[in-house]
Amino acid sequence: MVDPAEIFSRVEIPSPQVREQAQAYQDQLTKPAGSLGRLEEIGIWLSACQGVVPPRPISRARVVVFAGDHGIAAKGVSAYPPAVSLQMAANIRAGGAGINALAESAGATVRVADISLDHDAWGDERVSRSCGSIDVEDAMTEEQAVRALNVGKMIADQEVDSGADLLIAGDLGIGNTTPAAALIGVATRSEPVAVVGRGTGINDEAWKRKVTAIRDAMFRVRNDYNDPVRVLQAISSPDLTAMAGFLAQAAVRRTPVILDGAVVTSAALWATRLAPGARNWWLAGHQSVEPAHKAALQLLELEPLLEYNLRLGEGSGAAAALPLVHAAANIMNSMATFESAGVSETI
Amino acid sequence: MVDPAEIFSRVEIPSPQVREQAQAYQDQLTKPAGSLGRLEEIGIWLSACQGVVPPRPISRARVVVFAGDHGIAAKGVSAYPPAVSLQMAANIRAGGAGINALAESAGATVRVADISLDHDAWGDERVSRSCGSIDVEDAMTEEQAVRALNVGKMIADQEVDSGADLLIAGDLGIGNTTPAAALIGVATRSEPVAVVGRGTGINDEAWKRKVTAIRDAMFRVRNDYNDPVRVLQAISSPDLTAMAGFLAQAAVRRTPVILDGAVVTSAALWATRLAPGARNWWLAGHQSVEPAHKAALQLLELEPLLEYNLRLGEGSGAAAALPLVHAAANIMNSMATFESAGVSETI
Repeated sequence: MVDPAEIFSRVEIPSPQVREQAQAYQDQLTKPAGSLGRLEEIGIWLSACQGVVPPRPISRARVVVFAGDHGIAAKGVSAYPPAVSLQMAANIRAGGAGINALAESAGATVRVADISLDHDAWGDERVSRSCGSIDVEDAMTEEQAVRALNVGKMIADQEVDSGADLLIAGDLGIGNTTPAAALIGVATRSEPVAVVGRGTGINDEAWKRKVTAIRDAMFRVRNDYNDPVRVLQAISSPDLTAMAGFLAQAAVRRTPVILDGAVVTSAALWATRLAPGARNWWLAGHQSVEPAHKAALQLLELEPLLEYNLRLGEGSGAAAALPLVHAAANIMNSMATFESAGVSETI
Repeated sequence: MVDPAEIFSRVEIPSPQVREQAQAYQDQLTKPAGSLGRLEEIGIWLSACQGVVPPRPISRARVVVFAGDHGIAAKGVSAYPPAVSLQMAANIRAGGAGINALAESAGATVRVADISLDHDAWGDERVSRSCGSIDVEDAMTEEQAVRALNVGKMIADQEVDSGADLLIAGDLGIGNTTPAAALIGVATRSEPVAVVGRGTGINDEAWKRKVTAIRDAMFRVRNDYNDPVRVLQAISSPDLTAMAGFLAQAAVRRTPVILDGAVVTSAALWATRLAPGARNWWLAGHQSVEPAHKAALQLLELEPLLEYNLRLGEGSGAAAALPLVHAAANIMNSMATFESAGVSETI
């Protein structure tokens, strides 16, 4: 049994003192107290994460798309052929994908990390060529799982060391909502049919195959709930495991994160098991149409910023929500106080 | 009885043909069909409004804050003294208010139109010094109401002629949620207690006074449902009437609008009576905590983009939602198609 504490240092919590100062600062700004609602809460959270009031504007938001293929895709659980994973990775690198459009609008940049796409490439970020079909076999060896966690950790460290002040994880890989649903099902102790969704848009036959695959995968780890690395090794994939490592290390490095959809949130559920307390550093960008996503966000006690029926992945929903974090920061940076503007306070 | 058709030309609908072309275009972009959910719908709507696929990016979004004082404020329906209206108008002009911060984040500029603040200023945009206390008297004369509608119409024309490609109306004026609730109560045929809210944050005693004022105002127009100019004259205010004229004329001029909170939406309800079909040119930026707001959006059949417990006014919720319209436009402008990117379509 691999002890995650040997890989990830302890996660601190965003400063409660700074949180209080940020709340007091919000109440001095020229608006009825609390009248900017959720936008005030986000600003306060950002202040607490950064340890400063007002918070610094987010100037270097970074999206890292974790790309990998999935043995389970050969079982017909997706509406797209597995070859699309590589094509879409190239499309993101060329700037033509949904995440590129949304990141550009939000002032973020995009990196693709090829963890386990189905080709012969090798490099610092690679763990394996695709992975095992999780209904009948482990996605990877324990050695590969540990490597994937360390690759995700390395990527988080690289980005934070390069100055990233907000991180977004995105997912890319045909078939990846199947391990995501299984990971959420195990974490939330749900029935398979309660967590399975339509992914990229599958028909009823494919849906039945997907339910079966998820049920079989969940059964395979029925005794492993308290061994997060084992669960990831058995029923996730190298890319999702690297993503969990990335999310855990981002929290260790005190860096705010916006979570994306069902796939990223499935990795996030297990990242909190690798690095307890990590969820305090996260916002939920959106709630997707995948039924598992709602269950996962509830377990994390995170309220989505948007509910727009998104189901693209790639970090798209998190990038769509990023402008609201910019807005929340700007409120605290540019609004006048009652005193500075000479505005009367309440009667 | 004033016939609104003498002031506002007929409103066309956004092009159904272009809407269809925009839908077809979305389906060619490198994402599962419909996977960007609400963001796809916004892009399609924007295309139909502009009559072109893909839509042009919004480059000149403009917020107009309609400022006015309210006779009813002397009855203690607000948590702030009436003098705050003038102080806040100055704060917005100086760039220190919430709307300035949110507009800046969203790439929009802000104009304050002083319609009826409580001072002796005069000018093209002025209608009166404050207005009547709507529980016992008309807010204005019929002549003033017609002038207010024409002032709003003039402002919309000025902004569209200056190149504005998206308009936001904001509200400013202590006491203005009282006429707003009355306007929504009459339009939705609701009970006064069902539409009254806490405004800037009032206590129970002030809430009771507010319910009484709204009930009395609604009673005064019980026979005027089919005479929108009369309703506006009797129980709104010059600033809200100008806002209704602005929203009506924006639709006449085929210009997309993002609605803000309860006050703006109360004017919007009556703008659709002045210029039938105007709602097709609008998005609902958010749903506020004011109970009347939900009822008003339901009558308009508009789904809010955000639900963030906002209750500031000034156009703040609409400006907060504007980046999502930018994102929707950018998706259609910068994403590759399946063909151009060489990505396989569904199996």
